[in-house]
Amino acid sequence: MTSTFTWPQQITLREVGLRDGLQSMARTLPTAQKLTWIRDAHAAGLREIEVGSFVPPKLLPQLADTAELVAYAKTLPGLVVSVLVPNLKGAERAMDSGTDWMLLPLSASHAHSLANLRKAPDDVVADIAAMVASRAARGSSIRIEVGLSTALGCTIQGEVAVDEVLRLLRTVVDLGVDRVSLADTVGYADPRQVGELFARAKEVAGDKLDAAHFHDTRGLGIANVMAALQAGQTRFDACLAGIGGCPHAPGASGNVATEDLAYLFASMGLHTDIDFPRLMALRHQVAGWLSGECLHGSIAQAGLPKPLKTRLNIHDEVTA
Amino acid sequence: MTSTFTWPQQITLREVGLRDGLQSMARTLPTAQKLTWIRDAHAAGLREIEVGSFVPPKLLPQLADTAELVAYAKTLPGLVVSVLVPNLKGAERAMDSGTDWMLLPLSASHAHSLANLRKAPDDVVADIAAMVASRAARGSSIRIEVGLSTALGCTIQGEVAVDEVLRLLRTVVDLGVDRVSLADTVGYADPRQVGELFARAKEVAGDKLDAAHFHDTRGLGIANVMAALQAGQTRFDACLAGIGGCPHAPGASGNVATEDLAYLFASMGLHTDIDFPRLMALRHQVAGWLSGECLHGSIAQAGLPKPLKTRLNIHDEVTA
Repeated sequence: MTSTFTWPQQITLREVGLRDGLQSMARTLPTAQKLTWIRDAHAAGLREIEVGSFVPPKLLPQLADTAELVAYAKTLPGLVVSVLVPNLKGAERAMDSGTDWMLLPLSASHAHSLANLRKAPDDVVADIAAMVASRAARGSSIRIEVGLSTALGCTIQGEVAVDEVLRLLRTVVDLGVDRVSLADTVGYADPRQVGELFARAKEVAGDKLDAAHFHDTRGLGIANVMAALQAGQTRFDACLAGIGGCPHAPGASGNVATEDLAYLFASMGLHTDIDFPRLMALRHQVAGWLSGECLHGSIAQAGLPKPLKTRLNIHDEVTA
Repeated sequence: MTSTFTWPQQITLREVGLRDGLQSMARTLPTAQKLTWIRDAHAAGLREIEVGSFVPPKLLPQLADTAELVAYAKTLPGLVVSVLVPNLKGAERAMDSGTDWMLLPLSASHAHSLANLRKAPDDVVADIAAMVASRAARGSSIRIEVGLSTALGCTIQGEVAVDEVLRLLRTVVDLGVDRVSLADTVGYADPRQVGELFARAKEVAGDKLDAAHFHDTRGLGIANVMAALQAGQTRFDACLAGIGGCPHAPGASGNVATEDLAYLFASMGLHTDIDFPRLMALRHQVAGWLSGECLHGSIAQAGLPKPLKTRLNIHDEVTA
């Protein structure tokens, strides 16, 4: 750290395991378990949860109960609820559902965009424009985030040009979306690249650049979170037990684990409002539901350091 | 990264798997395999290797062949050879062996010092003074590094006071040692703490603070390396396949993996002179020798990102 950096007081973790995690698994978790997951994540202090996706149920039957999850999540006090939406029909379902935010994915990689949405990035931009227009026509108060995926590299095409990332960001900001985020969808990013890209993206999008999404595929997930933090970001996506990945990006398994990020920030004295024992108990429960799946996360294996347990006044600890 | 940071051009990785890795295992690797490990690590571009430790063979039979390893390692062009030394008798053996460096461990944690060396830190300081005097008396050209272990926390006593770390650093610098380093022996550190401690330690030790040693026990190893890098450090210990730990610090398994650090720095365009395919081939071979042991490392699982392979002109890749 250079001495010019001022640490932020508050960090927001957005749990995306119910969407980015579950969509990459063949199994479908029963709705009752998802409701428990949402309830206990909220009880553990998480205040932003992406509960699912309004994609055609035929494509992702794992997420077919998204409307029911939104309805429940909206009953929990102070919880900001978001869903992923791939097209106009999904956006209409999202607006009907009462969710607070809809996340529209836009691949910076042309090749990934074709594989994931069967459209070139500029055609996706046109769809986003239509969704923004639909929101206005309906007078909906839903907020719109565009998540720029494969912003730091792509398993299919390799390099993704920074200029293309910035061009797409500028375009969607000009469309009037409320927030943009950058995602290392495939776990290719390094901390130097992250710091530099977020700095340039901030010049383009200003305060509308307000979320970061990292995978830990190659062990650099936490270091990349740190780089984005040092570039001014304070909202991070994470999946409980480090589940997840993109079905169209081979090898892209493993979001950064929610509990490892909670540990990182707690260690550094930054507030996330997360109750560690409750979060670890939830991880333990979810791990049971997902038995046989590939789970990740270091803190569940090693347990909290003794000084941090003392500081957080934790006596009993759940580990894997 | 803040804009004021200037990235260094060159990074040195010191392979410590033959010492910190092997000492934590019950098995003893045959000397012939260790010689191959040293030869191939050198061929892969590693230019600093800690080959063993001059501890009593009764305590650590795994490292009893250290003198033979030093003799061989010293035949390899450009290789800087180091050994760990816990006491005056070991220092004499080190000076006899022809090694370039001896590393003297000094626990900042009083409790860890008693468990590991059966002496309080200030008694260890007295031993270090005796070793420095012995070097002078012999006219030996061996160089001395004091590695301040448990400098960022201790599994036995918990918190380790920064003032105590700085006091011990100042004391050994004043004794005339050539280099000091800081070690997160038990994997407790967080990146903010690392950045702050290395900055303060640099005020005390200046350019003599010139190595950093991290474990990845709780997933923050790479982020901690980044924090030390940003605080001006350019020499990092690492173990092939992330082996290692301290037998007197329960749960402290897993140094940062050499191949993951090589990947980190290569990703960021910083030079380590490491030949990636050769390093991965060596990892594959060592993993075979250590079958049944707990190995770590992300890049061996996931493989290099496509853009980096293109940049490094790598066509065939060995993964786990």
